[in-house]
Amino acid sequence: MSLIASLPLPVSGSRFRVVYQVLGGDASNETATARARAEDICVEETIEYPPELIPKGGIREHVLGRVESFEPSGVGRYQVVISYADETSGYELPQLINVIFGNISMKPGIRVLALELSGPLLAHFKGPRFGVQGIRERLGVFERPLLTTATKPMGLSATQLAGMAHQLALGGIDIIKDDHGLGNQPFAPFKERVMRTLEAIANANAHTGLRTLYMPNVTGPFEDMLERIHFAKEAGADGLMLIPGLCGLDFMRRVAEDDAISLPMISHPAFIGSYVLDPGFGISHFVLHGQFMRLAGADLSIIPNYVGRFASYTREDCANVARGCLSPMGQFKPIFPAPGGGIEPDSFEDMLKVYGPDVAFLMSSNLHRESPDLAGTVKRLRETLENLAPRSLPNERPA
Amino acid sequence: MSLIASLPLPVSGSRFRVVYQVLGGDASNETATARARAEDICVEETIEYPPELIPKGGIREHVLGRVESFEPSGVGRYQVVISYADETSGYELPQLINVIFGNISMKPGIRVLALELSGPLLAHFKGPRFGVQGIRERLGVFERPLLTTATKPMGLSATQLAGMAHQLALGGIDIIKDDHGLGNQPFAPFKERVMRTLEAIANANAHTGLRTLYMPNVTGPFEDMLERIHFAKEAGADGLMLIPGLCGLDFMRRVAEDDAISLPMISHPAFIGSYVLDPGFGISHFVLHGQFMRLAGADLSIIPNYVGRFASYTREDCANVARGCLSPMGQFKPIFPAPGGGIEPDSFEDMLKVYGPDVAFLMSSNLHRESPDLAGTVKRLRETLENLAPRSLPNERPA
Repeated sequence: MSLIASLPLPVSGSRFRVVYQVLGGDASNETATARARAEDICVEETIEYPPELIPKGGIREHVLGRVESFEPSGVGRYQVVISYADETSGYELPQLINVIFGNISMKPGIRVLALELSGPLLAHFKGPRFGVQGIRERLGVFERPLLTTATKPMGLSATQLAGMAHQLALGGIDIIKDDHGLGNQPFAPFKERVMRTLEAIANANAHTGLRTLYMPNVTGPFEDMLERIHFAKEAGADGLMLIPGLCGLDFMRRVAEDDAISLPMISHPAFIGSYVLDPGFGISHFVLHGQFMRLAGADLSIIPNYVGRFASYTREDCANVARGCLSPMGQFKPIFPAPGGGIEPDSFEDMLKVYGPDVAFLMSSNLHRESPDLAGTVKRLRETLENLAPRSLPNERPA
Repeated sequence: MSLIASLPLPVSGSRFRVVYQVLGGDASNETATARARAEDICVEETIEYPPELIPKGGIREHVLGRVESFEPSGVGRYQVVISYADETSGYELPQLINVIFGNISMKPGIRVLALELSGPLLAHFKGPRFGVQGIRERLGVFERPLLTTATKPMGLSATQLAGMAHQLALGGIDIIKDDHGLGNQPFAPFKERVMRTLEAIANANAHTGLRTLYMPNVTGPFEDMLERIHFAKEAGADGLMLIPGLCGLDFMRRVAEDDAISLPMISHPAFIGSYVLDPGFGISHFVLHGQFMRLAGADLSIIPNYVGRFASYTREDCANVARGCLSPMGQFKPIFPAPGGGIEPDSFEDMLKVYGPDVAFLMSSNLHRESPDLAGTVKRLRETLENLAPRSLPNERPA
């Protein structure tokens, strides 16, 4: 008698779907290899147990993943749709991610291309609290791309960083965040940095009549994360930047959902680049920087731009991030793709074709290279962006 | 005048070192490409700012990473040692990881091979609380490899899983953990599963006089993680399994360091496989499954074995994990490598050559394939392992 007796299972019948790319093996048996990989995903991400030891019905029918379609999608490549019972996720984000790409992250030739989550499952998550529209309302900027920047380099004192923020805000930049490497180092401790930067930006805003927002980076040990976040909130921060690769996607979700915090969230991609670099495995740009970040409640998703010092993201990769950020996903709001890493004003117009009008340019090194007059440079760049509007510019972003 | 005025910096002079592998470009200029990549790492992981805009001294001397050595290590490959001021980490694990492999995770051709952390930096972390010796003492097993297993498949009720645990404990298995896919699904909710499994194992232990330990998997939303962990602790759990890819390495560290919890920790590698799969980028097996897990306080580090259903980890990869788990790392205790994923008794002896005597075999699917008499199979396997001791077996694990 099998150890795995069949009992009635608490399953609703609602299932979510994951689109995978699966590579075949050598030319002689690539379809069979890919098909076996697809069947293996169904086992590995759910029961992780020999299916032949499980009686028909029950677990085999409802809990085991199910190949819904399997089609060639290129030389040696197959697109596979696998569905999973909503219940396998426990309706909790970490376990949902575990079903999508847990054990199979350790197996070659499998890439997550897209998530198609069911309505009942999505209803357990709130997604971005502000999204594109909410951020635009906070800024009072509706017609043009956003211009954002980071204060840096690491090693400056809190006073020096605040002085830089003051200059940038005098120019009327939309959002200032801390560089993602600024945690709580002795050079510019978190609380002092937040206080001084907020004060400097408030002074500049009072002078210009504009609304530059400040969103400090919060990287720290778990014991201190919520305390630092509440400190920033109470000090008057306009938002937060988190690095989900370091603090966890679910921690970001928890912060985004917290009504007592209720701040716009920027996600920074540090530490997660390895998931996308090889097109043969890992996670697509669409899911990693788009769908996952919306599940985690980000309102802006920073990525390396296709032009700049990160040569690893192509124009198409970046368009796919924009799609993941902006295309329909249940009740979730669309969010800003925020390309950075060597943005050049000469390519503003080209970038609008890739990302569409709802994009937040993140510019810092090149802004400093232009001139020591940061305020003047920002003012000129903002005017350039205003002249690029209206929103009816050509847009090659896939629908 | 530069915006970046030079001020006295609070730096101790103590630096930590990271060994990277950097790939060259095409044959004609590969050394220049690799050299440029090495210099770029120094910038990208610290100041993220044009070095030419920073005056000499101060930040350029102390905060910018420093190439300590640069040597060819194979065709188109270079081994580069870069040192960073301890202060860049803020002495906090997330920011330390950020310096080691933050932004450069998004750049091609860079792999973290090894960490050489300074004594002053390591002193800020506690590392594994129990380690190999502590786990052996809890089990009273000093001479042989450990035999561990998981209850599964997802879809069984808490009562069914507990019944399986009872059988496995009757055979005298050393450690039972939940399958890593068992979170808080309606099939077997976390608290009920923990209570029933603990009761079943206690009954079996009373019968056999042996000490099977139970370490439940804790995967859940952040709001509930610590509450679930304390529930397990109070219910009498002997340890915990966490999935740092989902909850974050620093959350694991926080739990491991908590004196009110004080339980052995198993780390599961779900979701982090993409870091190691391509030898040209990412993170080495040595660091990811060894050094990182010790920084996060794991006492056992689960990995896919080189023989089994994960074909992606080679024999050498697994030996490198064992090195990362067991070789000297400051004051940190050595920990158990715990290979799983299709372990076969026929390869016990070969695996001892790879991992050495301090290894925890994780066997579940193949254990169930042997016979429905789980207790009998476990008893026989345990005897096999006892006969493989003493610890003087040949060991090809690098020192």
